[in-house]
Amino acid sequence: MSIKTASFRVEARTQVDLTDRPTTVEPLYKSQKNYRKKLRKHVKKLSALQRLHYASDHRALLVIFQGMDAAGKDGAIRHVMSGINPQGCQVFSFKQPTTEELDHDFLWRTSRCLPERGRIGIFNRSYYEDVLITRVHPEMLHGHGLPDDLIDDKKIWQQRYRSIEDLERHLHRNGTQIVKIFLHLSKGEQAKRFRARIDAPDKNWKFSLADIHERSYWDTYQGVYSDALSATSSQHAPWYVVPADNKHNARLIVSQILLDTLSELKMAYPETTDKRHHELESFRHQLR
Amino acid sequence: MSIKTASFRVEARTQVDLTDRPTTVEPLYKSQKNYRKKLRKHVKKLSALQRLHYASDHRALLVIFQGMDAAGKDGAIRHVMSGINPQGCQVFSFKQPTTEELDHDFLWRTSRCLPERGRIGIFNRSYYEDVLITRVHPEMLHGHGLPDDLIDDKKIWQQRYRSIEDLERHLHRNGTQIVKIFLHLSKGEQAKRFRARIDAPDKNWKFSLADIHERSYWDTYQGVYSDALSATSSQHAPWYVVPADNKHNARLIVSQILLDTLSELKMAYPETTDKRHHELESFRHQLR
Repeated sequence: MSIKTASFRVEARTQVDLTDRPTTVEPLYKSQKNYRKKLRKHVKKLSALQRLHYASDHRALLVIFQGMDAAGKDGAIRHVMSGINPQGCQVFSFKQPTTEELDHDFLWRTSRCLPERGRIGIFNRSYYEDVLITRVHPEMLHGHGLPDDLIDDKKIWQQRYRSIEDLERHLHRNGTQIVKIFLHLSKGEQAKRFRARIDAPDKNWKFSLADIHERSYWDTYQGVYSDALSATSSQHAPWYVVPADNKHNARLIVSQILLDTLSELKMAYPETTDKRHHELESFRHQLR
Repeated sequence: MSIKTASFRVEARTQVDLTDRPTTVEPLYKSQKNYRKKLRKHVKKLSALQRLHYASDHRALLVIFQGMDAAGKDGAIRHVMSGINPQGCQVFSFKQPTTEELDHDFLWRTSRCLPERGRIGIFNRSYYEDVLITRVHPEMLHGHGLPDDLIDDKKIWQQRYRSIEDLERHLHRNGTQIVKIFLHLSKGEQAKRFRARIDAPDKNWKFSLADIHERSYWDTYQGVYSDALSATSSQHAPWYVVPADNKHNARLIVSQILLDTLSELKMAYPETTDKRHHELESFRHQLR
């Protein structure tokens, strides 16, 4: 039986308060073995759907991952997308912007990486950072080289939501399906994961003082995330708030969301017309 | 005395009918010599303003050129922009889109070329082609790989205008000044220039049968241009209809429009603060 994902969806024009949304749900699997089996099944289905997506060359799919540090974005992408042919799927991670990127409008650096028809594009963080981290640290706006007269403290976040909405509507009209996933982690679980990172020799490269510093803004982040999700969830580019304290659960839910989204795209292998049949027969003949 | 450009401007929310707009105006110069002197003066001023634009790193300037074949887009860009430091100015020509470009939304290929702050970006043709040539030849939409269910004949041009408006508003809010120039040529003058191209050994490479073919759609083009200019001229991204039957006149007008636009941007060389003065003095000392 497939996992119901509707309850994680943020309906268009509703207010989200992340403090009301669970970071855990009952396990969706019975044992470790059962989890692996379920995930394998999802990945296999995803892989088949992606082949169809690629062949039908009909829509693009853009999947955006956001979440606090250690929410499991990298892990979800690795575990869910690893079974998929990389020819049809590209992952872009958006970290510190470069000087060239900062000298452009805030949508520029991600726009260049948008997926083409037939492909899946994964954004590990995205243009949403510009209404999240930049909002938590508004001094960044000035550091980003934006002239003072363009920074209207009262309006800038609404203006950016508007830019994002306009972009997503445009992409939708032009054949890109968008789905946005917020991995919802609790502050306690983040501390646990940070400690594990510090302890593990193969993971402590991932850890820095900046992570601890950002953690002190936890409540502010929950607030700006709540606001951004409320403002930008739409029918054609919905947000999903995925409980992320249990990584296994999160991956099963994420893969189910992607399965649902791909299944809903109208896809078909290119039709074999009579003319094409004759052509293929003639090829066969010539190969004799 | 500077040339008045306001009469060429398309005011926001006004209907333009190109058949009512002149393709010629009284010469803005007294002789060939006087033309060259005037243009030289414009280019010199432009060059100084562009240095200031580059140093103040405050806004980007995007200049879009559109016009029928042989309207003088290349020539205007060459003559007006040649005095300018190319480090601060990039020209992009948009011809036949590539397969990769066609597999993205119609704004993608130009978005990647948008100018950064402190720079001037020139688009020789632009995303407007997607509401012009594509509208004159709607069969192109299907050739562009767009799935049929996304092509709503009744709505698609309005939707594209909306996408363009949204983009230009977003760019404006984020520090890009946009100015759009339509070089307005008469059908008779085009014929004259085509004949000259055929006759001149250094120009006939520019000529093809396709040019003659497109010419047969002249009236349709005037109609779709009129519609596009009416729908997309705004205060922050205005269109100018520049009479183009006389190339010299056109270049003087275009350079004046760019001068006006750059002058209106709030620009200043970065301020030398007291601290910076001390720093500079210390540099001078160390260099002794």
